[in-house]
Order: sequence, then structure tokens, then C-alpha cells
Amino acid sequence: MQSLIGLFRARNFSRTSKQVRHFAKPAQTQVHKISVKREGIEGLKVSKMSNEFNREQLESVLKRRFFFAPSFDIYGGVSGLYDYGPPGCAVQANIVDTWRKHFVHEEDMLEVDTTMLTPYEVLKTSGHVDKFADWMCRDLKTGEIFRADHLVEEVIEARLKGDKLARGHSTESADAEKDKKKKNRKKKVKEIKVEKLDDELVKEYETILAKIDGYSGEELGELMVKYKIGNPATGEALEAPREFNLMFETHIGPSGALRGYLRPETAQGQFLNFEKLLDFNNEKMPFASAAIGKSFRNEISPRSGLLRVREFLMAEIEHYVDPENKSHPKFDAVKDLKLDFLPRDIQEAGKTEPIKMTIGEAVSKKVVDNETLGYFLGRIYLFLMKIGIDPAKFRFREHMQNEMAHYAADCWDGELLTSYGWIECVGCADRSAYDLTVHSRKTGEKLCVRQMLPEPKVVEEYDCEIEKKKFGPKFRRDAPKVEKWLLSQSQEELEDLVKELAANDKIVAKIPDITTGEVEIPGDFVKILKKKKTVHVREYIPNVIEPSFGIGRIIYCLYEHSFWTRPEDSARAVLSFPPSVAPTKVLLVPLSSNAALQPVVKDVKEHLRSAQIPFKVDDSSASIGKRYARNDELGTPFGITIDFDSLKDHSVTLRERDSTKQVRGSLDEVITAIKGITYKGLSWEEGVKNLVPFEAQSEE
Amino acid sequence: MQSLIGLFRARNFSRTSKQVRHFAKPAQTQVHKISVKREGIEGLKVSKMSNEFNREQLESVLKRRFFFAPSFDIYGGVSGLYDYGPPGCAVQANIVDTWRKHFVHEEDMLEVDTTMLTPYEVLKTSGHVDKFADWMCRDLKTGEIFRADHLVEEVIEARLKGDKLARGHSTESADAEKDKKKKNRKKKVKEIKVEKLDDELVKEYETILAKIDGYSGEELGELMVKYKIGNPATGEALEAPREFNLMFETHIGPSGALRGYLRPETAQGQFLNFEKLLDFNNEKMPFASAAIGKSFRNEISPRSGLLRVREFLMAEIEHYVDPENKSHPKFDAVKDLKLDFLPRDIQEAGKTEPIKMTIGEAVSKKVVDNETLGYFLGRIYLFLMKIGIDPAKFRFREHMQNEMAHYAADCWDGELLTSYGWIECVGCADRSAYDLTVHSRKTGEKLCVRQMLPEPKVVEEYDCEIEKKKFGPKFRRDAPKVEKWLLSQSQEELEDLVKELAANDKIVAKIPDITTGEVEIPGDFVKILKKKKTVHVREYIPNVIEPSFGIGRIIYCLYEHSFWTRPEDSARAVLSFPPSVAPTKVLLVPLSSNAALQPVVKDVKEHLRSAQIPFKVDDSSASIGKRYARNDELGTPFGITIDFDSLKDHSVTLRERDSTKQVRGSLDEVITAIKGITYKGLSWEEGVKNLVPFEAQSEE
Repeated sequence: MQSLIGLFRARNFSRTSKQVRHFAKPAQTQVHKISVKREGIEGLKVSKMSNEFNREQLESVLKRRFFFAPSFDIYGGVSGLYDYGPPGCAVQANIVDTWRKHFVHEEDMLEVDTTMLTPYEVLKTSGHVDKFADWMCRDLKTGEIFRADHLVEEVIEARLKGDKLARGHSTESADAEKDKKKKNRKKKVKEIKVEKLDDELVKEYETILAKIDGYSGEELGELMVKYKIGNPATGEALEAPREFNLMFETHIGPSGALRGYLRPETAQGQFLNFEKLLDFNNEKMPFASAAIGKSFRNEISPRSGLLRVREFLMAEIEHYVDPENKSHPKFDAVKDLKLDFLPRDIQEAGKTEPIKMTIGEAVSKKVVDNETLGYFLGRIYLFLMKIGIDPAKFRFREHMQNEMAHYAADCWDGELLTSYGWIECVGCADRSAYDLTVHSRKTGEKLCVRQMLPEPKVVEEYDCEIEKKKFGPKFRRDAPKVEKWLLSQSQEELEDLVKELAANDKIVAKIPDITTGEVEIPGDFVKILKKKKTVHVREYIPNVIEPSFGIGRIIYCLYEHSFWTRPEDSARAVLSFPPSVAPTKVLLVPLSSNAALQPVVKDVKEHLRSAQIPFKVDDSSASIGKRYARNDELGTPFGITIDFDSLKDHSVTLRERDSTKQVRGSLDEVITAIKGITYKGLSWEEGVKNLVPFEAQSEE
Repeated sequence: MQSLIGLFRARNFSRTSKQVRHFAKPAQTQVHKISVKREGIEGLKVSKMSNEFNREQLESVLKRRFFFAPSFDIYGGVSGLYDYGPPGCAVQANIVDTWRKHFVHEEDMLEVDTTMLTPYEVLKTSGHVDKFADWMCRDLKTGEIFRADHLVEEVIEARLKGDKLARGHSTESADAEKDKKKKNRKKKVKEIKVEKLDDELVKEYETILAKIDGYSGEELGELMVKYKIGNPATGEALEAPREFNLMFETHIGPSGALRGYLRPETAQGQFLNFEKLLDFNNEKMPFASAAIGKSFRNEISPRSGLLRVREFLMAEIEHYVDPENKSHPKFDAVKDLKLDFLPRDIQEAGKTEPIKMTIGEAVSKKVVDNETLGYFLGRIYLFLMKIGIDPAKFRFREHMQNEMAHYAADCWDGELLTSYGWIECVGCADRSAYDLTVHSRKTGEKLCVRQMLPEPKVVEEYDCEIEKKKFGPKFRRDAPKVEKWLLSQSQEELEDLVKELAANDKIVAKIPDITTGEVEIPGDFVKILKKKKTVHVREYIPNVIEPSFGIGRIIYCLYEHSFWTRPEDSARAVLSFPPSVAPTKVLLVPLSSNAALQPVVKDVKEHLRSAQIPFKVDDSSASIGKRYARNDELGTPFGITIDFDSLKDHSVTLRERDSTKQVRGSLDEVITAIKGITYKGLSWEEGVKNLVPFEAQSEE
């Protein structure tokens, strides 16, 4: 999630990226009406006729069944903030639980829970205070604020569309166009002006769109002037773009003196605890820490519903590894997975067709930088499959060189295909030693690993000696800062200082914490000499491989991937979650409200409760079919029907959501089947093999 | 948690309360060195000699084993912010999981996840913007800031202590005193001046301490002047106390125009979704919503470690109930639980000895207001017992009349005894219809229940008719607000307006949203008449019973309640968590590092993993005893030892943490025993009844 949640460091400190990538456009245009074909619960081979995917219908189901709702709805809502209702909240809890088992437990990771409130100093050091920003521009007349890159993109897209319509090239009818506008209600450009453009201009516009992620604020400003891009509603010119930091600022404590922010990622809290974690791990390397928690991003003008929000759940892993050895002991377990890779060179050639290859191949061909990175790509894929992501709508896209921070060795995004295009949902980056290095240098705490060498080694190293008594009189209260700075220089930096001293007999430097300007250290204050040393310990700052998950985005993509409507009735929607992810596992349906059935209902409830299977009872007077239809929308995978035969032989009927197939057996057999399929990964066939097929009544 | 997390509403909008209650003082003085007697895992009747509880030793274990650490430690830390390391994080996850099963699943509650960022309007309506504050006073010379009530209390306590020492009354030696000072390192009063006071003054001081929770800011200021209470370090007078709002403020969006706060509780997010939740519940009453999430409180000067923090995890339930029927269908399940109650009248009589009675008795005698409140008190107690709280250190304390909000029907705090005194960890309040009413009135959205009457009823009700066309010319753009206000008046309020009209032929009122002052509505603008109506539906705003849990506080209390040291060696500390709460369930210990044992270790690991039992391997070269001692500090309940006999017959040894008893059996038998004890609530005896007692080697 480097470029999205993992932020600026992924983008050469430039700015946050966009969800819908331009080089993905060809796919995106097809995707708005992609066909959804479901196989039902894994192993249940039911081929379905499929209706076209309809985002409006999905959103209507999600809101009606309270998967989510705008926060503070009765107060008019606040854009970019959403609440999860009971089913959304349960899906989230199940996904977090699966994540924790799949990563933290299975990989022995060290989970931590660190605070969201973060003091200024920490985020200044990490670079967020200076660089975690988007470009915004203001309409000085109306007070409206636009995100500059989004605005330029949207206006140019609209003009190109108008041109196409004028040329009669559009594949979409005017009606479909209107329809689309309704779906993107928050678009700034309300009307498409049908107007033919110069061929030359069309080409310029297309080039701009292809490069839209890479422009600086100044460049965006120039484009806005050159192409007369202003407020789409009034046409008025806007103020030049300026940086807007995306962190929420606050003050800690009563004095107002301690500035703080809400964290933009969980990673920093993990890095700061590195020493304690290494100690907890008995100094063993490699190891990983992990954190699940909310992070915050003050978006300029959030759109795209659940995909771009101001408060979101992340799950991040920081895997600390020896920079000289990035192999992974469990690499064999994933090396034969065949995945879609979209490497940098393919994108640079302007193509979007991924290559299918195994992870083993990708690493051996250096498409993926190292084994540990490759291992996590595999684990990420397996996790997403476990929770129900459609493998046909998944790819790993490598970051372009200009998207990556200068220190990053490699970075891949796990992208999911939706009606909004390809969405970055998981990032997996090699962050090198950057974060531990900057925090270590700032605080003077060594964040490093000490490894006993098999035998002592003689090395020649620069050593810095200072004439301590000269510092006080010259630098006064800054003296300790200057001394600390000199003594914390790395070997490479010392080498540079030696050259500087040889040339000028002084060192001139900008020292952190000294705000009064550059400091001049005379040559006789310091001696930097090469010395031979016998070394018993190798000391190194580990590199960090960081898989970072945007849980909210994954959840939204899962909703799209799981949604379909019954071919026989397009109004009957189904959310085909895997049973382990489904909010509720069982709907309990008494066939009639006859009092005779009540004791059986009570008995079944008690059994389900003691088996810890989440269930709901629907004893309303609606027809069986209506009751099931309601729960298909909630994604409930199983139905248990209690009828008058249940009174005689304690048997019940078990219904499967996707196929609507039914089987019959004793309550114990049915519970065993549900547990097997939900928690032990059995297929429907395996799970119900001892149960008797049951002639389903029509579901109406 | 009304007075702590549930905040001001519990304190008549006065201010937040204190953890250590004064009327609990007699207990508190005994408690600093309370004896800890452990029974081991439930059912394992091992009586232990016990050492005295030592908070410093506990804190040293918690920090050494990274249960927690100050956040941003390498940056010097920020007071009131703590990170949980891997064991603390796992304890928290297990407690949250237990909470969710115990409340949400077992009671069919509707869990929601709402945002922490909250706009100003919402918290203005709820009352937090105006009243969620503490009194602070500033030292204008040094810039130091003190929380007024804490300062007055601490200074007076120190003076009384000095008086006691001067009179030779102290039971504590000077050494113990020094010791205590060290333990409360952050105390403002650094030195106790030994000085005898007038008997009269001692009495005045004692009265002040007894009433310290009830003073207004002005009163605190008067006390500070009268008794010359200033900066304890310098003796200098301080600025008069002023209110400091405890919410963290921020701005949402780029314009800075939308003020927001970090929520001080999860409750408001639940109330705002009331209509959607009722709809989700198919309009059935009663029902409950629940939320687990972080809340924030900008403490003036947090002390007491994990007990008073600025960012904390809460779990809150809002149970919506018909105000005319607060019975509970499952009340019978808890009515025979016998608990310690400290009702209001006992406290008012200056006593602290609780009454032991059943919940049934408490409700029937009206000690507890109603069945639903009583039911939740029982469920709270059962939850705390499940996670390992010591029943002998638990009580329910009723709020005093002046602690409660005017609208509250009743409020009880679940308090836990620790070395800091009695700590409020769970609040359980009847909040009446307050919150739903204020939000409904502010937004104009009806937050109410509509219930079909068994038969239509004729009622006489006030009806308000307005002369719409007169409002525009007089009130101009405020007209809609005035109209809305008139039409949203309740029957009681309409009755008052009728009287006002009769007396003055006009209505003068302060209308929310109209900031320009009072509004005068002439008598001919409005007609309020009693009318007969046939009513088919009863409409009511439900009352809310709110159990509210401070998870972080509960965790700290659990640490104290679980901590003891082995009688034979006071340096060997144990944390006796119940297996379900323990961070790791099993420590896997190969007896030797001999390669021959490796395949068995691998096999056991795979079995434990597939049984989903969290475990750790310790194959270090330390002695078995040392390895177990380390894990006793982590609270790991079981140890599996692999020795050379394991190679022959695949048997392993199972060790129980508290008793250090060992049994032997096949790996499958041992795993079954662990699962039974950890997840199915079996006692150790029940769990291992098929296994063979094993002669334990000495653990050294």
C-alpha cells in the first residue's frame, strides 16, 4: 500500500497516488459492466447464468442491509467518513480474525498496538510533516476547494468525451452517459460539452492523462493556465495549487505546546519499538512485527465511497531482515504459485497485459527483487483467496521508478479489479533501512542488530575524536548537539568529512535541531582517522519488507467480487461470501409460526450457540423464499429449516445459499457439516456427504 | 463507566471523576500490600503461601516482558500514551474476543463500527463541547499546569501526613514513606513537611478530602486561596482554575471550516444510527447495539500508568428499552448471583462496607432500579470472572446523587480493587431517553419506536398550528428555524407554551441555531389547542441502559489480580491468567538441543498449529527451569516438554503453570486436554483425567 496508505515514501516523496491508474484504463472501460460468474462455495461446482454487474444495485443492497452508512447521516453526513452496521462490522471482524491467524499466528509475528496520537517530532523525522501532502487549489470567489490533479484529470476527460461525442465515436449512448453521471454523483464536471477538438489537442490531452500521477504542483498550475482549467461550475480561474498536508493535526495536553497528529499509518509505531521487539524475540533475526488499527488521512475532497475515506482500518507487517541475506526459509511453500505480474518494464512500454508466472520464476528472473518479498507476495495472494477475492480480478503491479522512494529496493501493489478500475489494496515494499536509520539518527538510540561473528575480524574504520573542551566556548548551548552530530556520522559520511577537512580545514554543516543556520566547525576541533580494530560483532540496521493492507478497501472489493443476481430474477441479489467471512453463518427458519415448532426452534438455537456458530432466527410471517432472499443479500451461507417432520425424527433441512441446494439430516449431522465447511475448509460436497439430498420446494 | 469514560453526564455535567474514591480510603490504605492468594487454574485446588504484592515488581515484569511500554519511548515518551507489546496486545485481543462472544453473540447485539472523528455539531448537541472539562490552573511564572482538584487533594494529603508524622501517629516508617514516594514518582508534592497542625484544621482538611469530587472550579479556587495552596515546588500562587475541555480538537477537510473532535466515547456513534439499527432489527424491541473501539481524552496531567491514559479502548453497549417496561426476559439467569453492592445510602452514611445480596433481592428491594439494569450487572460480573478478575476484589458502587446526571434513573460502577485503590472499570447506567431526545430535537429526525396498539385509542393532545405566512416577513431567514422549533415541541412543552400565551399573548424563547438572542413570537402566529385524536400507534423514545467497559483499565487490574511470586523464591513471578486470556497457550520445550529431538519438535509444532493453539518454542540453551520461569512471567498456562522418551513412544509431558504439576500422555491426548481446558472451560483435573501423573524434576 506504499502509494496509498504507506504514503509518500512510495512516491519519491511527491504525493499520494490515485486509485484508478491510467495505464489501466483499457481494462477499466471494460470493467464497468463486467460479468460476474460465481462458482458458489468452493467445491460446489454450480455454473450460473450471470447478469451484468450493477454498482447501483450493489450499493442499494449494502445500504439497505446496513453493511455501511455515511457517518452522522442524520446531521447531513461528513464526506469520507462511514460507519459499518452489523453485517459490515462482522465481515470486518472475520477478515481481521483471518488476517491475524494467517499472518500473526502462522508466521509467529509480534503484534503490537501503538497509539494513533503521534507527536510532531516523530512525523517530522519520518518525513510526513514535510511531504505527506496533496495539491489543492481554491476558488477565491466561491471558497470551493479542489484537489488539483483530480480536477485537471476530470476536466480533460470530460473534454475528450465531448470530442468523441462530437465525432460520433462514442460507444455509449446518451442514456448510458446520463446513467453514468448519476452513478458518479459527486463528479465536479456536471455536463459534457459536445465539441470537436483539434487532433493535436486531443493528443496533448491524452499525454497529460497518461502522466497525471507524475506532475508537481507547479506543473499542474501551468496546465491549468495553459488549458484554461478553472472551476467547472463557473469557468472562473482558480488560485495556483498549493500543498495541503493530509494529516489531522491536534494538540496533546493542556498547554497547547505539544503539537501532534493522528497517525497516517501504523508503521512508525512499530519502528519506534524495534529494540524492544528484537529483545522480546531473544535477539533472533529475521522476525516481523504487525499491527492492526485505524489510520487517518484528511482527504481534500473524498469521492469513490468506501474506497477513499478519511479514517480507515489498516493491517501492516514490518518484516526485519538482514540486508545481506533476504532469502526466506519458507519460500518453497509459495514458489509454485502462478500469479499475474505487471512489472515496471511492461508498463513503461505502455502495456497493461500482465505476465503469468510462478513466484519462483519471478524471483529467479529478478522480476521480484528477493525471496522474502516474493514470499510475502505469495502469502498476500493466499490471504485474499481465503477471504473470497476473485483470482481473475487480481494482479501484482510493480511501482514505476518515479512512484518509488529513492531508498526502496522494490515495491509491488496487490490490485483488485472493480467497477472503479484497478484498486490498490495491498502494498508490499522493501523499504530498505530508511525508517530505522532516520529515527536512530534523530534520537541517538541505536536501532540495529548485533550479530556475533564466527571469528573476530580486523577492519580499518574511520574514528572520530573531538576536542570536547573547545566546543562549549564556541557553540555554547548548541555544543552537545554539534558533538552528538559528529559522533553519529556513518563511515560514508566520515569519509566525506575527511575530504572536506582536507580541502577547507573546516566543516560547514546544517545540523538537525539547530535552527539558526549552518554551523562551522574549525579543523582543530575534530580528528577523523582511519584505525585498525578487531571486531567481534557485526552491527547492522535491518532492512524492512512491508506488506500493508487497506482492510476497508479489500472489504469493498470483496463486496463487488461477491455480488451477483439470480438469473431467474435480477431483483434477487446474493452476496457469496465464503462461510468463514460471512457475517452470520446460519439463518434459522421455522416453516410455520405454529407453537408446536417452538421447542424445536429453541433446541436448535441452543445447539448452535453451544457450537459457537453465529446465527439469526427469522420467524416472521414472510414466505420461506422471502426470508431466504433477505439473507442471500446478507450473504448468510446456510439455512436450517424446521418443519413438522422435525417434530417426529429431529431432522432438519440444510440449504446452501449459492446453489439453493438442500440436504436433510439430524441436527448433529447438520451442525457437523456447517462446522466442517465454515471452519475446517471442507467443500459443500465433502461437508454434506453423509446427508440426504432434499427435494427443494420452490423458493417462492 | 459513567463518571470516567461515560463522562460528565454521570456527574451532573460537573466534571470527570477520580479513580481512587475517597470513601474507599480505609480499604485503600490496607490495599497497597494486599496479600495475593492464588487458586491456580480454576478447579485446580492448590493453596499457595503468598508473598506481599509489590507493584514495582509487577511493573518491572510487565515492562521487561513488553506487555506495555511508554509510546515514543526513544523520543522521550508522551505522558498518558502507552503501546502494548506482543503479550499485552494478545491479552487485549483475547479479552475483546471474549467480550464479543459473551455480549454480542450470546445476546444477539448489533455491533457497529463508527468513526472516531466527530463533527462539532454532534458533540455540541450531546453536551460534550460545553461540559466535558476539568479545572486547570496555571503557574504564570513557570508555565506549569495543574489539575485543580488533584492538586488540592495532594497538597492537603501531604499536610495531613506531615501532621501525623509530627504527632508520631504514623503507622508507616520513614523508609516505607520514601518507598511510597518512589512508587508514585510523578507526584507533584515531592516532600512531606513534618509539622503538627491545629486539630480544627485537621478536621477541615478531612472534610475537604471527603468532598473533593464535588467542588466547582470557583470553590476549588477559593480553597486554594484560603489554604494557601500554590505550586508545590515553589509555593507560588497559581492562576484561578479555569475549564479545560478534554476533547482533542482537529479540523476535517482542507478549508479548516469544519471543526471536529476525537470522540470521547463510542456511545454517540451508536445513538446516531438508532433508526437504521431498529430497522435492521425488523423494528423489534428491546434490542442492543454495541461498539468496540478507541476513544480519547486529553487529560491535563495523566498519572497512574495504564489507569489514566489519553487514548484507550472501550467496549460499550447501548440497550434500548421501553421506558414503561424495563423487565428482562433472561433475568432469571442472573437473579441468584450474590454480589457486593455499595448503594448510595450506605455511602451517604459515610460507610464503605458493601452489602452482599443477590441481584434478584437488589432489584426487588429497589436497590437496583430495574430488571434490565440488574441483568446487565450480572452479565458484567460473569464476564469479569470469565477473564480472571478476582471476585474478592470486585464490587458494584452506586453513584451518589450529585455524581449522576439529572436525567439518569440509576447508575452503578463495577469497581476493582488494586494497589491504587478501588478503580472504576465498568459503568452501568440507565441514561433514560436523554441522548436520543437531544439528537432528535437538533436534527428533526424522529429517533423513536412506533408500536401498533392492540386497539385504537382516543386521546386528547395538544396540537400546534402555525400561521405560516406570517413567519417569513417577521423572522426572515430564521423563519424555518422558528417554525421547526414550534412543531417539534413535546406535549409537556406545549402545555407550558399555552400558559405563556394565555399570560402574555406571546412566546419568548431561546431557539437553538438562532444565535442572535431570544425570539419573540406574537400570539396570533400560533394556535395551540387540545384535540381529540384516534391513535393506532404508540410512539415512544426508548430509554437506554448502557454498560460501558474501559478495556485498558480492566487489563491493568487483571495484571494486578493475576500477579504473585512463588513462595520458595520471591524473584520468580507468575501471571496466572485463565488459559483463554493468556497471550500464548503453550510453551514447547525440547529437553535438549540434540538433533535427534528436532523431528519430534517439528511434529508437535505442526499439530499445535493445525489445532489452532497459539504456542511458542523455546529451544534456547537455558535450563528447563529458567525457560519455564520466563514463561510464567508471560502467563503461559501450559508447557510441553519433549525428551528422549518422546522418541520412543511419542509421549510428551504437560506442565501446568500455577501448580507446576506435570502429567504425561500421547501428543493427541495432551492436545485434547489443552483444548478442553482452554476453550471448553474444563478444569485441570477434568482436562487431564486420562493422563498419567509425572514425577516432576526440580525446576532448576
